[in-house]
Amino acid sequence: MSEFAAVDVIRAKRDGHVLSDAQIDWVLDAYTKGVVADEQMSALAMAILLRGMTPGEIARWTAAMIASGERLDLSAVPRPTVDKHSTGGVGDKITLPLTPLVAACGAAVPQLSGRGLGHTGGTLDKLESIPGWRAKLSNDEFVRQLSDVGAVICAAGEGLAPADRKLYALRDVTGTVEAIPLIASSIMSKKIAEGTGALILDVKVGTGAFMKDENDARELARTMVELGKAHGVKTVALLTDMNTPLGLAVGNAIEVAESLEVLAGGGPSDVVALTVALAREMLDAAGIDADPAKVLESGAAMDTWRAMIRAQGGDPDAPLPGARETEVLRATEDGVVGSLDALGIGLAAWRLGAGRARKEDPVSFGAGVLLKKRPGDAVRAGDVLLELRTDDESRIPAALADAQRAVTISQGVPTHGRLLIDRIA
Amino acid sequence: MSEFAAVDVIRAKRDGHVLSDAQIDWVLDAYTKGVVADEQMSALAMAILLRGMTPGEIARWTAAMIASGERLDLSAVPRPTVDKHSTGGVGDKITLPLTPLVAACGAAVPQLSGRGLGHTGGTLDKLESIPGWRAKLSNDEFVRQLSDVGAVICAAGEGLAPADRKLYALRDVTGTVEAIPLIASSIMSKKIAEGTGALILDVKVGTGAFMKDENDARELARTMVELGKAHGVKTVALLTDMNTPLGLAVGNAIEVAESLEVLAGGGPSDVVALTVALAREMLDAAGIDADPAKVLESGAAMDTWRAMIRAQGGDPDAPLPGARETEVLRATEDGVVGSLDALGIGLAAWRLGAGRARKEDPVSFGAGVLLKKRPGDAVRAGDVLLELRTDDESRIPAALADAQRAVTISQGVPTHGRLLIDRIA
Repeated sequence: MSEFAAVDVIRAKRDGHVLSDAQIDWVLDAYTKGVVADEQMSALAMAILLRGMTPGEIARWTAAMIASGERLDLSAVPRPTVDKHSTGGVGDKITLPLTPLVAACGAAVPQLSGRGLGHTGGTLDKLESIPGWRAKLSNDEFVRQLSDVGAVICAAGEGLAPADRKLYALRDVTGTVEAIPLIASSIMSKKIAEGTGALILDVKVGTGAFMKDENDARELARTMVELGKAHGVKTVALLTDMNTPLGLAVGNAIEVAESLEVLAGGGPSDVVALTVALAREMLDAAGIDADPAKVLESGAAMDTWRAMIRAQGGDPDAPLPGARETEVLRATEDGVVGSLDALGIGLAAWRLGAGRARKEDPVSFGAGVLLKKRPGDAVRAGDVLLELRTDDESRIPAALADAQRAVTISQGVPTHGRLLIDRIA
Repeated sequence: MSEFAAVDVIRAKRDGHVLSDAQIDWVLDAYTKGVVADEQMSALAMAILLRGMTPGEIARWTAAMIASGERLDLSAVPRPTVDKHSTGGVGDKITLPLTPLVAACGAAVPQLSGRGLGHTGGTLDKLESIPGWRAKLSNDEFVRQLSDVGAVICAAGEGLAPADRKLYALRDVTGTVEAIPLIASSIMSKKIAEGTGALILDVKVGTGAFMKDENDARELARTMVELGKAHGVKTVALLTDMNTPLGLAVGNAIEVAESLEVLAGGGPSDVVALTVALAREMLDAAGIDADPAKVLESGAAMDTWRAMIRAQGGDPDAPLPGARETEVLRATEDGVVGSLDALGIGLAAWRLGAGRARKEDPVSFGAGVLLKKRPGDAVRAGDVLLELRTDDESRIPAALADAQRAVTISQGVPTHGRLLIDRIA
């Protein structure tokens, strides 16, 4: 193609045209190689966000991102493979108990995870609070652990969908994250390239999710399910609520601790319910007949957790890091907790040091928010509503302000949204 | 502002909001300093192109671009200052005869010009075909020549609207040129910063112009007239036709030669008519009572031309560069020339080497297209319609194909559009 090709592709999408297969293949290949510059790709991403893409364009874009790197071959793994992906929420530690649970039921779970950015947490950040645990595995280590333990949670290798890696970092700084075609192709290109046989998507809807609107979330879910099927990956999506944080812990080490409670047979009811619901979908997709609720009770999932952590250098018995400073938020009146806004709690945890402002920032493992009350709980003036934890006390005032705004005390009985909103297959 | 400011500004415009004065001031200052990255500004430019800007936003954006650099003080110049700007067309050499003509009538014309990009030519490229002539002057040289000769055509200094310089180069490679708020603020920030007292805008409409649509051109003209007035610059816009090239020469040296014919009292009637019409507007805006048609006849404009060229190191008597290869396009049937598409002829000249594909490319001074017939001229099969000139014969086939597509031969009398479409003050 000519040296004008990048501008031609940008203009075509800007003017609302459908990009050809050749244009999509060329622009992603040229971007991966550095021939198309960041400033050209960000203009194209903005045009895609505002003009949209047809299902055919999204399918080709996804295929081109997969083709930019290697596709793992998991055929040597002696169990059916099934993975889960969440679009990200506040307090969403479900991957931690879910992966060993599904493995304990007989599946192999090749879970490539990411780090947190903004107010949503990242699975790898949470696990790195376990002393010794490492996120990076070679492809050989990955396949071996998947065969031996049945469960791996690790960082995606450099060779997997490099076009997506570059584009994701660019979208984050250019206001082009919230485009359904780009979100769907980003998620699905990585999951298809990792080689899983089946995939369950947890698409979050609500204030604490990227998708605030149920119709947008439904469109994203449908788009991803179609992409999975087109590439031979059995794919099912659940739409789940993210107006309230999941569980009581929002942070890194405190979310690991809550996950361990679930693996030990306890833990908050919403975390247990969503873990079991997702496990049932995963086992169904993998063709395995097992009852995850019973396996959770048996302690087998905890055994798999310990094996999984040890296989990646972690010490499952080491104490988890704490935080130097704590502060509490108390109720100023009697009543019932009406809402606990997920975005506000997520922002508070982020401000306390649990998340990062830039990709290269470190996270504080001990920082976060511990909820002491849930929506529907009766409170009296002076009761502790939540606890803030941080290593840096200068971070407390802004976090406290976010937390205060996130909690409402009402006088009547609050209405509850369902945790599980819909299932799209 | 926080480190998230760039993304906040991009998102605000992306979602259709009006940017605040503080956001506009900050983003242009930060972009000039390199704090806002190219990939962020290109995403913002695309959002501006697709979402638009209010008149208030455009005014502030322009003011911020002016404030990014110096504003020249022409108060020492002992004559009224008046400038002209064309939005760019094919064969548009009007600045060359117009600047010395208006100076010969008693005004001072501080003409800061640009280089060609794509199918439209650049005034500086044309003048550089004159041996010895240099485009770069210091601010002192600029003001001195303006006082002594009354006419300067030169490159804008580095200190003038540096935000625009950076943004213009970025827009060119990111498909974000065609945004009225960005075009208007780019042109007006440079013209206001150069210090002219009055300004006449030649806004081109047609296939060979950036604005293909008359309504868009009218909106651009109105926007620029308002910006000029708001900054104390008396501003009038003419809307003129650019469906057919201006004159018979499209290139660099051959456009200088055609301009010399006009200064000598001859030349194509459309070039003469537009030169005189624009001169009348400029003199009127400068408050000078003179008849440019008579001054042109008197030879005084040619004298000013020679003084202007000499003042910048050029030899007005030196022969102009020619081209090594020529080729002709002949009529294949009898009839009347129906249309001569400006875009097609501009592309042919560009392919022959008269224009550049990238900013850093050189241009060929002798290359271009010489029209031998104009719309309405009767032709017989075998007559020469136009001549192609180039230094590189491998460029001829593609240019010939563009030229062939640009010419239609009809059997009836073609309808003519008016050269002067409207006047907006």
